[in-house]
Amino acid sequence: MNYCSQCGNSVEIKVPEGDNRERHVCDSCGTIHYQNPNVVTGCIPEWEGKILLCRRAIEPRKGYWTLPAGFLENGESTQEGALRETLEEANARVAVGPLYSLFSLPSISQVYMLFRGPLLDLDFSPGEESLEVRLFEEAEIPWDELAFQVIVETLKCYFQDQRSGEFRLHSGVIERLPGEQRRYRTTLHE
Amino acid sequence: MNYCSQCGNSVEIKVPEGDNRERHVCDSCGTIHYQNPNVVTGCIPEWEGKILLCRRAIEPRKGYWTLPAGFLENGESTQEGALRETLEEANARVAVGPLYSLFSLPSISQVYMLFRGPLLDLDFSPGEESLEVRLFEEAEIPWDELAFQVIVETLKCYFQDQRSGEFRLHSGVIERLPGEQRRYRTTLHE
Repeated sequence: MNYCSQCGNSVEIKVPEGDNRERHVCDSCGTIHYQNPNVVTGCIPEWEGKILLCRRAIEPRKGYWTLPAGFLENGESTQEGALRETLEEANARVAVGPLYSLFSLPSISQVYMLFRGPLLDLDFSPGEESLEVRLFEEAEIPWDELAFQVIVETLKCYFQDQRSGEFRLHSGVIERLPGEQRRYRTTLHE
Repeated sequence: MNYCSQCGNSVEIKVPEGDNRERHVCDSCGTIHYQNPNVVTGCIPEWEGKILLCRRAIEPRKGYWTLPAGFLENGESTQEGALRETLEEANARVAVGPLYSLFSLPSISQVYMLFRGPLLDLDFSPGEESLEVRLFEEAEIPWDELAFQVIVETLKCYFQDQRSGEFRLHSGVIERLPGEQRRYRTTLHE
C-alpha cells in the first residue's frame, strides 16, 4: 500500500495514537488503513460416505485437489458463502450442516471454516475454477495431490470421525515453517 | 474507496473479467481491490458460574456492556486474538477454551467468534477501551445495556447451557432490520 484510497496522497507506516501496531496512515486526510485476515469458507460435500473434491483450474496450486471453498464476500453469512462456493466450483447443491473445521493460518492471515454439507443430488460438474470434480472414498483420497495443508488436516480428522461414527468440530492453527519447501506445523485444540 | 492504493490513480467500480461481483478496479495498473468481511474474536471469561463483562469507553455503544472482543489482526490465530483482546480490554488472563458462538453479521460484514475462557485469577481491571470491568451472575446481567445483539444472543445461549450443564457451539446469522431503531432478526443453526 503506497497511496491513500480516500484522498490519493501518500501513506506512511506508523503506530496511530492509542494503537499498539503499525498501520498505513494518511497524513493528509488522517485515514488509518487497517489490514485484517480474510475468511475462507467452504463445504465438505458428502454422499454415502464419499466426499467430493475439485481439481483446481487456477493458481495457486493449479492441478491439485481441494474442497470447494473461497473468500467470504461482504454481505453474506459464512454458511451462504460455503453454499455459493460449492455451487460455483462444483455446480453442486448441498444442505449446509454444522461447522466441521476451523483453522487459523496466521502465516497467510486467513481463517478457514469448513462446514459439513450432504449433497442433495449427484448432478455436479466442474465450475469455471475447476478442471475436474469427483467423489472419493477414503482409500481413494489423493493425499499427495491435495492443494493445501488445511485440506489435509480437515480430511484426516474427517475420516477418523467417520470411522468412530462421531463427528465434532475440530479447530487449530497451521503454521508454515521457514524455507522453500512446503512444511507445516499443525496444532489441534482438543 | 476513490484511489488505487498501489499507484494512486482513480479506481472505478466494475465487474472484473471472470468475476461476478462489482469491485473497485484500477484501470491504470489493473489492481483489483477486494473488500471482505472482518473477523471479531473474543472470550466469555468465566469464574465460578459468573462471567466478566466490560463497559465500553469508546464508540460505538460507549457506556454499554460487552464481552472482551475485537478485530483479529494479521499474523495471529483466532484464539490468540481472543486472548489478546481479553488482556487489552480487561487486563484479564484466561485459558482460551473451545469456540462457543459463531455468528455472521452480514449487514456489517463481520464474523463474530467467541471462545469460552476460564479466568486464571481475579486480578482484572479496566483496559484503555473499558470504563469498568466486573463479574456478573445470570440474574445480574444488564440485558438492556448490552452493546451488541451478538452479545445478547451469545449470553442467552450461554446461560441456557449453564442451566442444562451442556455447553456446545452455537452458530447463526444476525440481520439488522431496516429502520432507525435497533431491531434484529436472529437465525440459529441448530
